[in-house]
Formats: sequence, structure tokens, C-alpha cells
Amino acid sequence: MVDVCLLGCGGMLPLHDRYLTSLIISYKGRKLLIDCGEGTQMTLRASKSGFKTIDTICITHYHADHISGIVGVLLGIANSGRKEPLTIIGPVGLESVISGLIVIAPELPFDINLVELPENKSVITVGGYIVHSIQLDHSINCVGYKIEIKRDRKFDKYKAECLGVPKEIWNKLRKEENVNYKGKLYTSDMVLGEERKGINISYITDTRPFDDLIEFIEESDLFICEGMYGNDEDFEKAVDKKHMTFRESAYLAKSANVKELWLTHYSPALTDPENYIKNANEVFQNSVLGEDRLRKTLYFDR
Amino acid sequence: MVDVCLLGCGGMLPLHDRYLTSLIISYKGRKLLIDCGEGTQMTLRASKSGFKTIDTICITHYHADHISGIVGVLLGIANSGRKEPLTIIGPVGLESVISGLIVIAPELPFDINLVELPENKSVITVGGYIVHSIQLDHSINCVGYKIEIKRDRKFDKYKAECLGVPKEIWNKLRKEENVNYKGKLYTSDMVLGEERKGINISYITDTRPFDDLIEFIEESDLFICEGMYGNDEDFEKAVDKKHMTFRESAYLAKSANVKELWLTHYSPALTDPENYIKNANEVFQNSVLGEDRLRKTLYFDR
Repeated sequence: MVDVCLLGCGGMLPLHDRYLTSLIISYKGRKLLIDCGEGTQMTLRASKSGFKTIDTICITHYHADHISGIVGVLLGIANSGRKEPLTIIGPVGLESVISGLIVIAPELPFDINLVELPENKSVITVGGYIVHSIQLDHSINCVGYKIEIKRDRKFDKYKAECLGVPKEIWNKLRKEENVNYKGKLYTSDMVLGEERKGINISYITDTRPFDDLIEFIEESDLFICEGMYGNDEDFEKAVDKKHMTFRESAYLAKSANVKELWLTHYSPALTDPENYIKNANEVFQNSVLGEDRLRKTLYFDR
Repeated sequence: MVDVCLLGCGGMLPLHDRYLTSLIISYKGRKLLIDCGEGTQMTLRASKSGFKTIDTICITHYHADHISGIVGVLLGIANSGRKEPLTIIGPVGLESVISGLIVIAPELPFDINLVELPENKSVITVGGYIVHSIQLDHSINCVGYKIEIKRDRKFDKYKAECLGVPKEIWNKLRKEENVNYKGKLYTSDMVLGEERKGINISYITDTRPFDDLIEFIEESDLFICEGMYGNDEDFEKAVDKKHMTFRESAYLAKSANVKELWLTHYSPALTDPENYIKNANEVFQNSVLGEDRLRKTLYFDR
């Protein structure tokens, strides 16, 4: 099972009663964080998620509301006692942004691996997660993420026996791909059953909708998507500012046949998102208003 | 009259229910802000103080809890429509810190004047305030501030008449130091009464106490001072970490004969400062527990 917590639901400015949009995913005790605007360490602390096992931080783009809290998060991780290296992923420019911001945290007790994403699409495996990225359509270079959590394959005793795999190495082959035993090579494929459906969580913010995005997020178990504007009348504003209305996000959710949509990244002017959720629900019924520290546990299909 | 608002009272880490220590002073529609840790823009927005008339930002030192929110504050000022230049004051290193952090706010609509303070003491006049600084005793280069607000001198009609200053330039001499009129030089001194006592607000955090500090803060109308630890038993910790206990701050307040002490910059572990205020009150009765957005209006002496 995979735990998901939306740490904040605001866009543009962190407010006293609404943190900036950020997501933390926990699976098997390892965590992946997406976006760190100002205040993320505060809501992260309030969520009681813990800092120490954050292995990976994905940044969508370098507008302050998505990145300016990263030093606070890194210091929080340092205070937690972590010594193991950590990976930060983001679009081109990551190195200069991080080296600029880190000027006030010169002595972190862990190494940081920086991964600058290529344009268009990419897939990286890191910290037990498969991180897919796609180029979005925003006012600056911005990427969307799909986090794929693979489900372990079942041990297939019958197959192992049929293929004559010695019992002594069964356990080892559950964890390792290749095992040499008494001069013969055995592979994990010889003891594991079929691939099983994993869990996909998509996180798309600061973009206009476009066709390729539908394929990217297709059949996500959870689709976290910006809804900068609730009112349909703000459509022109959404086009102009390169954001989306609730209704547009819901169309994406419906077209991609996702299981559930969480709206987030509300404009500070949108003080009453609950008055507009019907605009999303009319299009896609399983649309939910994101709120600070909204949580869900996702289970693999039975 | 001078308005003072303590925007936060925490130290080290911004918490969900306690912002980091920061102070805003307003006088005649112009504002001066001291320290900007992560979240300062959030509590500033909640305080309804407004961003546009912040002319000056003073930074005590470059630990993240005192500086990492500065980009958010600068962007808030930019959003408010300010175009006029702004001054940032801080110890040596200011230029490299600001140029690092500002990488995520490349297009601010106003110029920034950076003033790096010399070691030991200094006095600067900026934005209608006289900013005094003193070197503190912390783990890194750190300064304390005393903000002096001069009181306008009264117009002295009797003096003006005795010295034969023409009535036509009385008003002008209230605002300008020198006025030439019909070939003769007149000075404001010729129409203004005696100097009057102004208002002094001292802001001292992240330091051990020391003798020179008493003279620096002497007779302050308001003395805002760190109290990282409430419990007297944390004295050794205070010495080690270069901070102060409530009792030590109160001794400073008493020795300097200030009017009022506000304790602030509580350790995140100090969840119940109210249980320790007696340690300060025993020494200096007018000790007050700082809290987020604690306000006071200071009046000039009658």
C-alpha cells in the first residue's frame, strides 16, 4: 500500500490558512516529495510524515511557489539525522537554482545528486519509484510527473520446481535478478510469477491542458491536478496565465479515465473553492477538492 | 506614534502554529522589517500590515531561520505594485546571500540597495529611521539592531519672531534645513524648538549577553529579545548554543532600564513558554511573552 498526502493546495502565494501545493508519497518506508514552496517544511512537520526517509525531491519548475522552501526541507532532513545521499530532480536549470539557494545551508550532512530532466519525456528509477516526466505548457519550462510504484511479483513455487531451481536459492532469487549456484546461473524470472499492475500517481500543475497529457496520465489511480480557477468565467484568465479551470482539469481526468481527481493549486483569490466543485463534478464525478494534508492510502488491485 | 508588530516568536524552525521571529515597524506610512525566515510573508499577510511601503529590511544574520523567507517577502512587495527602490541591510556576506537566493526571482520591479554593515557598531539613516547596529556573540557573524525614531521638533513662533525670520518661509523651514530668501540664509534651527525625546526599539536575538549590549539597548521603549530557553536549567545549553534563557534576557532588560521586554525566538522544544515567564518576571517585572502578531503602539513622551 502507498500513502499519499497533499501537503498544501494553494498556488502563487503561501497563505496563513493555505499552504502551497506539494505532495508526499510513502511506500515501504521510503518517501518522494514533489514541489517545495515556502512553508512546505511547516505543513510536512504538521503532517507527521517525518523527514529522514525522504530520498527524492521532484521539482516541477522554478517559480518561487514551487521551489523556495527547498532549503527549509533540506535542513529539516539534516536535523532528522539523515546521512544518506538524496536525489533532486527538476527541469534544466536545477544546478544553478540549487547552488544559489543553498548559500544559506552550506553544511548539509548528506550528498545531493541533481538530475536535470531532458525536454519532452523521460523515465528514471530512483528510491524505489519510477518517475515519469513530461514537458508542460506553462510560462516557463515546467514538467509534470507520474510516479509509478511497481508491485512485487509473487513467488511461484510450482514454476521454480518445474524449472529445477534449487530450494537453497529461492529466497535469494526473490531479491536478486541473477544468482550463480554450483556453477549454474539462475534468474529471478525462474521463480517469480506474472507482472502485476502497480499504482500510478500523476501530479500535473502549472500548465494548459493538451492532448499528449491525456496519454501520460492515462488510468492513473490518483490524478493530482491544478485548478487555479473554479469559476468557468475565468477561462480567459486561465488561457492567459497558462493555468486551468476546475472544468478543464476534470475533462483531462475524464478523457484519461483516471480513478480519482484531486484539485489543487488554487489562486489566492479563490477563497471558496467549495462553491465551484460542481463545475468539475459535472464532467468527472470523482473530482475531490484538495485541502492541506488531505490523505489517502492506495492499495494494489486484488 | 509608532506601530510595532512581532510577526513571529519562534526560533530555529518555522512551526505550523508558530512563525519565525520577525518584526515590522510602521511610522508615518513607512515600514521597516527585521528578519525574514521561512513563512514571514504568510504572517505578514495575516497581520494586514501591507507590503508596499516596506522600504527597509534588516537582517541579523544568515542562518536560514532569519533569511530564507526574504525572496517571498520581496515577491510580495513586487505584487503590491512597488516600483521604488528598497534597502536591505545586513552583516558582511549580504551580497552573496542575496544574489544566491534571488535566482528564483529574477525580475523584481524595483532596485535593491544592499548595505553591508561594518563589524562592531554602526549608525545609518534610512527610510525615516535611524538604524543602529552592534556586533553580537553568536556562532556566526550576527548583529543586533536598535531602531531610533526621531520626534519632530516643535515650531517655536517666539524664537522665529525674535530672530526676525520672515513669516513667508516659516512653513518651508519646518521641512527644509536651509532656505535662501531675499539674499539671506535662514536655517530650520531658527524656527524649531528643542530636540525632543524619540522612540527606541531594540531587537536582539541569537547571542549570549555581554556588557556592551546593556549600553546599546539602554532605556529602549521596547526591547525585543530572544529567550531561546525558558527553564533556568537550560543555562548550560544556552551557553553552548550561544543563546539566552528568559532569566538572562530579563537581566539585560533590568540592567539597561528598558521600559518593556518582549521575549521571542523560542526553541521548538519550548512548547509551553507560559510556564517559564515567572523566571523573567522575577528579575524584570515588565517582561511579556512574545506571540505571533503581538502588537503595540508606542507614543512619544508628553
